[in-house]
Amino acid sequence: MTDIAHLGPVELLTPKPEQTLHFFHELMGMEIEGEEEGSVYLRGWGDYQRYSLKLTESKQSGLGYAGLRAWSPEALERRVAAVEATGLGEGWSAGARGRGPSYRFRDPDGHRFELYYEVERYEAPEHLRPTLKNQPQKYVPRGCAVKRFDHLNILASDVRANRVFAQEALDYRLYERIELDDGEEAGAWMSATIAAHELIYTQDHHRANGRLHHLAFWVDTREECLRAGDIFVDSEIKIEFAPSRHAVAQGFFVYVIEPGGNRIEVTTGGYYVYDPEQPTVVWTEAERRRGQFWGNATVETFHTYGTPPIEGVDHQP
Amino acid sequence: MTDIAHLGPVELLTPKPEQTLHFFHELMGMEIEGEEEGSVYLRGWGDYQRYSLKLTESKQSGLGYAGLRAWSPEALERRVAAVEATGLGEGWSAGARGRGPSYRFRDPDGHRFELYYEVERYEAPEHLRPTLKNQPQKYVPRGCAVKRFDHLNILASDVRANRVFAQEALDYRLYERIELDDGEEAGAWMSATIAAHELIYTQDHHRANGRLHHLAFWVDTREECLRAGDIFVDSEIKIEFAPSRHAVAQGFFVYVIEPGGNRIEVTTGGYYVYDPEQPTVVWTEAERRRGQFWGNATVETFHTYGTPPIEGVDHQP
Amino acid sequence: MTDIAHLGPVELLTPKPEQTLHFFHELMGMEIEGEEEGSVYLRGWGDYQRYSLKLTESKQSGLGYAGLRAWSPEALERRVAAVEATGLGEGWSAGARGRGPSYRFRDPDGHRFELYYEVERYEAPEHLRPTLKNQPQKYVPRGCAVKRFDHLNILASDVRANRVFAQEALDYRLYERIELDDGEEAGAWMSATIAAHELIYTQDHHRANGRLHHLAFWVDTREECLRAGDIFVDSEIKIEFAPSRHAVAQGFFVYVIEPGGNRIEVTTGGYYVYDPEQPTVVWTEAERRRGQFWGNATVETFHTYGTPPIEGVDHQP
Amino acid sequence: MTDIAHLGPVELLTPKPEQTLHFFHELMGMEIEGEEEGSVYLRGWGDYQRYSLKLTESKQSGLGYAGLRAWSPEALERRVAAVEATGLGEGWSAGARGRGPSYRFRDPDGHRFELYYEVERYEAPEHLRPTLKNQPQKYVPRGCAVKRFDHLNILASDVRANRVFAQEALDYRLYERIELDDGEEAGAWMSATIAAHELIYTQDHHRANGRLHHLAFWVDTREECLRAGDIFVDSEIKIEFAPSRHAVAQGFFVYVIEPGGNRIEVTTGGYYVYDPEQPTVVWTEAERRRGQFWGNATVETFHTYGTPPIEGVDHQP
Repeated sequence: MTDIAHLGPVELLTPKPEQTLHFFHELMGMEIEGEEEGSVYLRGWGDYQRYSLKLTESKQSGLGYAGLRAWSPEALERRVAAVEATGLGEGWSAGARGRGPSYRFRDPDGHRFELYYEVERYEAPEHLRPTLKNQPQKYVPRGCAVKRFDHLNILASDVRANRVFAQEALDYRLYERIELDDGEEAGAWMSATIAAHELIYTQDHHRANGRLHHLAFWVDTREECLRAGDIFVDSEIKIEFAPSRHAVAQGFFVYVIEPGGNRIEVTTGGYYVYDPEQPTVVWTEAERRRGQFWGNATVETFHTYGTPPIEGVDHQP
Repeated sequence: MTDIAHLGPVELLTPKPEQTLHFFHELMGMEIEGEEEGSVYLRGWGDYQRYSLKLTESKQSGLGYAGLRAWSPEALERRVAAVEATGLGEGWSAGARGRGPSYRFRDPDGHRFELYYEVERYEAPEHLRPTLKNQPQKYVPRGCAVKRFDHLNILASDVRANRVFAQEALDYRLYERIELDDGEEAGAWMSATIAAHELIYTQDHHRANGRLHHLAFWVDTREECLRAGDIFVDSEIKIEFAPSRHAVAQGFFVYVIEPGGNRIEVTTGGYYVYDPEQPTVVWTEAERRRGQFWGNATVETFHTYGTPPIEGVDHQP
Repeated sequence: MTDIAHLGPVELLTPKPEQTLHFFHELMGMEIEGEEEGSVYLRGWGDYQRYSLKLTESKQSGLGYAGLRAWSPEALERRVAAVEATGLGEGWSAGARGRGPSYRFRDPDGHRFELYYEVERYEAPEHLRPTLKNQPQKYVPRGCAVKRFDHLNILASDVRANRVFAQEALDYRLYERIELDDGEEAGAWMSATIAAHELIYTQDHHRANGRLHHLAFWVDTREECLRAGDIFVDSEIKIEFAPSRHAVAQGFFVYVIEPGGNRIEVTTGGYYVYDPEQPTVVWTEAERRRGQFWGNATVETFHTYGTPPIEGVDHQP
Repeated sequence: MTDIAHLGPVELLTPKPEQTLHFFHELMGMEIEGEEEGSVYLRGWGDYQRYSLKLTESKQSGLGYAGLRAWSPEALERRVAAVEATGLGEGWSAGARGRGPSYRFRDPDGHRFELYYEVERYEAPEHLRPTLKNQPQKYVPRGCAVKRFDHLNILASDVRANRVFAQEALDYRLYERIELDDGEEAGAWMSATIAAHELIYTQDHHRANGRLHHLAFWVDTREECLRAGDIFVDSEIKIEFAPSRHAVAQGFFVYVIEPGGNRIEVTTGGYYVYDPEQPTVVWTEAERRRGQFWGNATVETFHTYGTPPIEGVDHQP
């Protein structure tokens, strides 16, 4: 019950555009919706918009921008006004592929966002037309066959400031957060819907700005996450964090590093929040030391590595 | 983005209260939250309220009432005003176990509802305290171990009238519906959230009023639905419709008849609706003839049986 | 603990070789190991021999022959002697692709078999070399990605006679069978290992000879069978029997008709037989009327259709 | 195709008999088949013998003995003669609960075994009678609901000597082993059937003798292993190694420490060996350093801890 319908599309930057495209098309199993000015547009079989991922060649890896669809034209106006009031607004653009006028801004940490309402729904071409008309596209059994873009985890040097911005200017709901013993906020899990997380801020280990932790793509079952692990083992892709289950937000995951260096998650599970008064769960440092859901330790690089990497300091897993 | 947060609790009537209680406690794996004035209150391990199911002895099976939690005090006021305007309102009650003031009304078909906002969140007793604090209760591995109440499917002699009431007075969103060749509406799938269905009206085969098609309880995986089938096979419970996947709303299911005669579903799956402008999918008679998701036929009684059964006509599967 | 190591390879006949090849390569996800004299040789990623399926163009669909690997050179001699003693032997051939000398014979119903011992293990080419050296080939995430050939179900006009032949001449163990009220045997499930079924005879509804009921290919999980259903729904392939679980032998299944007309199963599950004295389970007609594992009805054509179909009588599902 | 049908029953020693019994009955979901002279006999719902686990109070944890059922009376004679020839035989006993004459011996490392042929098949009492007659007992949905005993992993100070003994005296087949750079053998995975492992020897980190690494109990699906993890998280049980997949033998697992201190696994998966000439896979030290199937690290205690623990050295995980 917020002014935001959902996150996406997201733009991902890669210094190895061909290999990154191969990763998303062959291994993640996404469809190429089109190409334009050097960028490639991709979609999961369950994405309702024309695309959810824009791949752009760049000297460095990292996040280009994240789209944010408002719930209605009025919701869009309200959010633009709220962002403008913070002084972080950058103004309107005419829109982009498959999308109407977009309002550009940066969060306090410097990540780029584009707020919009108007979109084109995807119309599947003949060879991708689904048998069941309540799904946007045929299921294509290639690679992990991810269904749709799910959530975004971005690094911030000051999690609390960015989290408050997301709550106040963007109308996100805060479901879980980590507060260290010294009072610092180490992570915040927010959502615009009943899904347990859609926008996550976690602390940048190097106190850098504007970096990406990971993009997550959805599959419907835990078995598909396990199978994603099997697929990556027999590819050239580095699995950073083997399939398991998070304690925070309870999502099931497997994390890999795509050829361009960005961390990508295949995810499912979690829980739904039906309570409009849902109290925020606050995890202490001691509780986080307990590890993931089943008590297993978190892989070290998961806490330190982000994109673009910081030269000489941040080693790709 | 509606004024309704969710459906529930629901009251289920049973002529065999002991056996029905055994079914929900031992086989569905729900916890008994308490007893009061002859009713028993039950919860899934993931329900955030104190209970999601109230079992009440009655001469006949069927639905007692369905609770509807509003998103906020203001949303409650708006919905009460909208219901009152239809002339179907019945007035306020002081509330019920774990719940504040409730506004009572009937839908056009005569099913009883109670609208409310104030609730008590569940506080797990010591032996049910969860290890992970982002879940309301310990996971209890008994029977199907259903997580929470999920959705309600009620029969109506005039689906269209009731569906329009749910949209207009209750602010539900309509995601899918069936329209027969003669223009009659045979079913309507509605939701207050991104979940593909929460409130469903389907046509009463006998054109009776106020009857129940089924209550559905959620598990997180398809494997748990298959396992529910295995559990019921080795119990005294009749499986009406073996584990499979629906075409409409794409939910995964297994349907059984509980000892009191009511149809109960263990469910998971489906899809999320992130598009605020989601067009309603309209299925034709010919399309529905194709069967369920994988083309399999629907069990005959699934189209005819409801509770309370109509004497001499409606035979329990 | 029999003289037979396993069934396979099998030769499948098809009047539509290109479409059948597309089915096995793209949808079943098998690899093309090679082509020779108009036949195409295919393998699952987990098959240890060079191939488990030989596709051959033919005017009619049906089974070409089934290979049977003996456990040792001595076991081969014993089985050849036993078959010769029945008068059904046809003599030795020099062997075939990837396989040494083979002894050809027919079962009483006329199906062709080839008994052999010597084989070539598969050596994966560079692009299919697995990461884990305890598996013969890389996992290739295309279509259903079946792991290996699993079992063969053939029709016989006289099940009992063929079952006794398989036990006595071929040393198969009989785990389950169906005996009708009139004493006729309607089906027999046999195995050479702890797996619950490898060679099955079921009654030919039309009392024809030498026909095929189905070939089954293995996946490791029930979720992959469900997913196979999803894949076939969005292809041009007819699902004859939607994913579910058998009562006899307890296997999980989905059955489709490949473009050449043959019935193909994607299977998993079942149980292991560790008891050397395992008594045969005998199902009565009444017990079989109960349906499949969860009580669901068997699709009608499953009892009547076989390949090659009998003209004018046997309609493809 | 060996003289051994299978391993089991196994006797487990525990200094905390009540809590250990609670673990196996409530959390593992096994049935109590009976009690006799201070020991409790337990079974999984799929075990064909009366019991597969005997729990006995003892000052220390560890393995009591492991049963080994021969394939036939003749196979039993052959194996007894082979064991006697090694000088490790200890002579015949009259048998035990549900089992005929048994030949007792120790492996070179000192673990106790009992070889036998005659057994009583389980006859389910009324309340546990299964609906499907091809399964020994009703499925009981309590805790992890393990199906049957699966495999045994025992520690040895000299893996090679014990592995050779198992091959030569016990007729086991060797499928995989680890050979360190200095030529020492660190582990050996053996089987009497097509299942990838049934008897495993791994190196005792402390070069002690007669110790247990773990007992493993089978479930049919990976989802049940994940669910076992969820169950243990919400119990008082320590998860030592969270659900994941092994590289060697490819089994899916979760490892816990039962209250008596013994390591117990819930397992599924792996692969089948159909090739009678299957070459042994030999893993090098470098290959094992790669971690488990998905590249994840092995928990440290998994390499060091065994039962009974060595005082002052071996700390329970």
